[in-house]
Amino acid sequence: MESMIVSSVDSLWVVIAGILVMFMQPGFMLVETGFTRSKNSVNIVMKNFMDFSVGAITYWAFGFALAYGGTTLGGFLAYGNFFLEGDSLTYFFQVVFAATAATIVSGAVAERTKFSAYLVFQPFICGLIYPIVTHWVWSGQGWLGDLGFIDFAGSGVVHMVGGFAALAAVTVIGPRIGKFDDKGSPLPLPGSSMVAGALGVFILWFGWYGFNVGSALAVVEVDLASIAVTTTLSAAAASISAMYTSMISGKPDVTMTLNGALAGLVGITAGCANVNNLGAVLIGLVSGVLVVYSINFIEKKGLDDAVGAISVHGVCGAWGILAVAIFDTTDGLIYGGFSLFVPQIIGMLAIAIWAFITSFIVLKTINSLIGLRVTPEEEIAGLDASEHGTAAYGDFILKK
Amino acid sequence: MESMIVSSVDSLWVVIAGILVMFMQPGFMLVETGFTRSKNSVNIVMKNFMDFSVGAITYWAFGFALAYGGTTLGGFLAYGNFFLEGDSLTYFFQVVFAATAATIVSGAVAERTKFSAYLVFQPFICGLIYPIVTHWVWSGQGWLGDLGFIDFAGSGVVHMVGGFAALAAVTVIGPRIGKFDDKGSPLPLPGSSMVAGALGVFILWFGWYGFNVGSALAVVEVDLASIAVTTTLSAAAASISAMYTSMISGKPDVTMTLNGALAGLVGITAGCANVNNLGAVLIGLVSGVLVVYSINFIEKKGLDDAVGAISVHGVCGAWGILAVAIFDTTDGLIYGGFSLFVPQIIGMLAIAIWAFITSFIVLKTINSLIGLRVTPEEEIAGLDASEHGTAAYGDFILKK
Amino acid sequence: MESMIVSSVDSLWVVIAGILVMFMQPGFMLVETGFTRSKNSVNIVMKNFMDFSVGAITYWAFGFALAYGGTTLGGFLAYGNFFLEGDSLTYFFQVVFAATAATIVSGAVAERTKFSAYLVFQPFICGLIYPIVTHWVWSGQGWLGDLGFIDFAGSGVVHMVGGFAALAAVTVIGPRIGKFDDKGSPLPLPGSSMVAGALGVFILWFGWYGFNVGSALAVVEVDLASIAVTTTLSAAAASISAMYTSMISGKPDVTMTLNGALAGLVGITAGCANVNNLGAVLIGLVSGVLVVYSINFIEKKGLDDAVGAISVHGVCGAWGILAVAIFDTTDGLIYGGFSLFVPQIIGMLAIAIWAFITSFIVLKTINSLIGLRVTPEEEIAGLDASEHGTAAYGDFILKK
Repeated sequence: MESMIVSSVDSLWVVIAGILVMFMQPGFMLVETGFTRSKNSVNIVMKNFMDFSVGAITYWAFGFALAYGGTTLGGFLAYGNFFLEGDSLTYFFQVVFAATAATIVSGAVAERTKFSAYLVFQPFICGLIYPIVTHWVWSGQGWLGDLGFIDFAGSGVVHMVGGFAALAAVTVIGPRIGKFDDKGSPLPLPGSSMVAGALGVFILWFGWYGFNVGSALAVVEVDLASIAVTTTLSAAAASISAMYTSMISGKPDVTMTLNGALAGLVGITAGCANVNNLGAVLIGLVSGVLVVYSINFIEKKGLDDAVGAISVHGVCGAWGILAVAIFDTTDGLIYGGFSLFVPQIIGMLAIAIWAFITSFIVLKTINSLIGLRVTPEEEIAGLDASEHGTAAYGDFILKK
Repeated sequence: MESMIVSSVDSLWVVIAGILVMFMQPGFMLVETGFTRSKNSVNIVMKNFMDFSVGAITYWAFGFALAYGGTTLGGFLAYGNFFLEGDSLTYFFQVVFAATAATIVSGAVAERTKFSAYLVFQPFICGLIYPIVTHWVWSGQGWLGDLGFIDFAGSGVVHMVGGFAALAAVTVIGPRIGKFDDKGSPLPLPGSSMVAGALGVFILWFGWYGFNVGSALAVVEVDLASIAVTTTLSAAAASISAMYTSMISGKPDVTMTLNGALAGLVGITAGCANVNNLGAVLIGLVSGVLVVYSINFIEKKGLDDAVGAISVHGVCGAWGILAVAIFDTTDGLIYGGFSLFVPQIIGMLAIAIWAFITSFIVLKTINSLIGLRVTPEEEIAGLDASEHGTAAYGDFILKK
Repeated sequence: MESMIVSSVDSLWVVIAGILVMFMQPGFMLVETGFTRSKNSVNIVMKNFMDFSVGAITYWAFGFALAYGGTTLGGFLAYGNFFLEGDSLTYFFQVVFAATAATIVSGAVAERTKFSAYLVFQPFICGLIYPIVTHWVWSGQGWLGDLGFIDFAGSGVVHMVGGFAALAAVTVIGPRIGKFDDKGSPLPLPGSSMVAGALGVFILWFGWYGFNVGSALAVVEVDLASIAVTTTLSAAAASISAMYTSMISGKPDVTMTLNGALAGLVGITAGCANVNNLGAVLIGLVSGVLVVYSINFIEKKGLDDAVGAISVHGVCGAWGILAVAIFDTTDGLIYGGFSLFVPQIIGMLAIAIWAFITSFIVLKTINSLIGLRVTPEEEIAGLDASEHGTAAYGDFILKK
């Protein structure tokens, strides 16, 4: 009876945590619509609903099978239990993670991508690219887990996958019309609502407690609160450091501050159960600085990431994986985890390369078959009108 | 001690689930304001606050007494424990359901209903019409429960009650000025914010896990995750099928997709603990198709449901009740529950007729006593100005 | 093993409740941006992010040490455990409360306060003024706790601290340009979005269940649901009574109704575990009336509280502390707690005076060193442009 109570309580928490992670979906939606122009908001809404909807069906049909299907093919992928029945707890907690990985790409390629092409790409990331990485790390059968690679809640498995898929996507799709001037210098494109963007970030922060604390997958004899605290401290430190970094070149910037909070959350995700509070603060401080420089660097390279997703999820995800090796305290030393550098670097590179190359191949193929981009006329008119025949804010008067 | 732990953990989950269901209130508010015009947004906000506030007081004063008051009057209604003290757990989980049933009507009759009249109607649904149906089904003393009627989380008890009350309401109140042209063909009225509407649907989806998984009313030895999974799969399948159905007559439509997700949630609510994953996907696929045809059908009949509430909650609620009979797997067969058809059809008809007729009588009476509609001048000016002396978006410039 | 399960379940609930309270941050942000003008929304967003971020770091560095650091200095403040490691559960639940106290001030002084000055003030309230009050009441070592002062979830400790700090702040900073005419009569300044404001209030109501029910700090053998019910009933009663009170001088007013709901939540916070349902309804009814008269009274005194924070949190917080003495039923009598009047009145006065005077001194000092207010030109242009170089709604056309 006691063990039944323990397992029921553990399961209860994983279900609640999964519900919190599911709520990150509107968080992403609000960040993406808030940071981009009103004429493309409906399109973003539609992509976000399809991220979770197509993602849930895809992950049920075959994504779960490739990650946790039972038999492993050499630690690379699993096989079995397609069109899942049973194993509901693992499915539920994993499917919301899969949808997170997918939705990261949506923001980066906003305002110029054909909706039909996006729908073709979506199942690949939820059903194939992401599940295989989870098999490597979290299945108990994978090659990276065997190496001793540590990624407690997914700085690499979820965020780097999304971030490097986004990098492939903006490389293939190209920048928005008007993002760069004739000399290639980036121009600001006004976001439709900083309040919506900020609400989105707060919702993500809220859901992230499900993400990180839920990844303990247990309650009894686990110090859940300590994970909540490292998560909080890193996000807080990063939003402060990002704000002050933005002030080097001007006034305290709201998009950098908001992306800073997300950067701190991504950065602590791998190590949230392995570092102490001071480590968490330091991880956050670095994340906040890193995200500002990374966003500016990527823009200067002529890449157009509409919401900063590559920097937040890809770059800070990689930093989070490395940070485990620097700040891990689980062996009893303060900063004694240097033996972790080898598996962490291998894992970081493997995930980045896998997510980038597979996404690049899939997107290039889609591009040559049906085209990834709307026409320039459609892009200028806005995707809401051209792709969905409607407007997001029907009775407001908008600029241009 | 062990049984004390078990009951405490069970209660904890019901409290948390109730909190999640309470959060559906802003979800409804956002869907309703997002899908309607800015000039009526304050009025919708006020109705939503009164739905929960008047609902909570009404349900405390007498609604609970009629549903769970102790003594049953022939399985039709209970009696006792007015102005409730004690029984807090049942009250809390039920009051958020009662408010849900009430708020469904609010959206359907938006943009033309007198606020004072709405306030008179509201207590009837929260305090009388809804509680009596719960007595029939969930009290352990009711005639429908005795028949073997299955409605795990309320496709019928909550959503059909709200949906058929909404049908009565739009029948009595009539369409908005400008909704139909001279020949009776429906015209589109632009919604003020698809982003708000989408956030509302995501919030409802999030809260629905409290609704469905919470209805287990227990944790230990219950497979909560499986209910979360059927809920997720049905909503996902429905938003996809609604989107593709909308494409038959045009571009992928955002309001249909959003209503599709809600339709899938309503559809699975009765059977979420009784069907398997494949059944959930099929229930969702049907819900998504059904809601699109139902919305168009109701509009063609000259009825003006401002947000699609009748189709989402009434029609898909009825489908959810029927679907239990088709897809129930609790007897060990795959689709073996055909013996359930008789109680399910009786329950479905009884709830639909009860909710429609009682609402119709109450609304007709209110209409003859104080009038349900604002004047045409007030309606054209918008209810925010005429009923509340304010504007929802004070410093934005709006059309017209 | 059993006691391990009990303590793990208790901790689980405190973590979940802390997550809910953290979510109150975007609730405050939405209320504040919704009730004020669009040209200052980014500034409010930035203040809210810094409230939680600077608050979390400050409370980690020294706030916790002064509240719960171990050794008490005469029941006035604690000392020890600076730059906290360990004690994660207490930190996490307390830090979200500290951020709540801080963010209350942000709304009152909106639309004219210098961002840099706000950043200087913020650590004082999160790291000093609030922690010392918690030491008085909740540490088990403080002088107010020893007196028998009852404040279950913080009507005084959190809300009065925030509300009276806000009173000091608006006194020092002065009214916004355009708030009063030449004769000193208050003028309405239109809020940017009542829908955002209403969403904020619903989010606060949702998070408040974490605040009040979480303050039980335990699950097993605790009637959590009864706290959820008193909380619900008071908020519901207050939003109704505030609405009807607003109708004395006009139409049913949305900002008064929304502030009414908050007033009822603040009012019940001290006594939510000590009063019965009828008591909760009565506390709420009074709160809703009180907040309307208080807002009008404060405005007539020439004080400019942009969102009504002094009335909601300060005045209704004081009422909540008194209400415990009137409605406490824990000694088995219906309204038998009259012996509580002495400690409740002492505590109420002590907290009000402490929060007002310390805030006043700190703000006066900041004012003389760097200035608290932007220039009139910056204020008229809006703080988003002048302080952050951006606009909240980049592609919407706004008035003026």
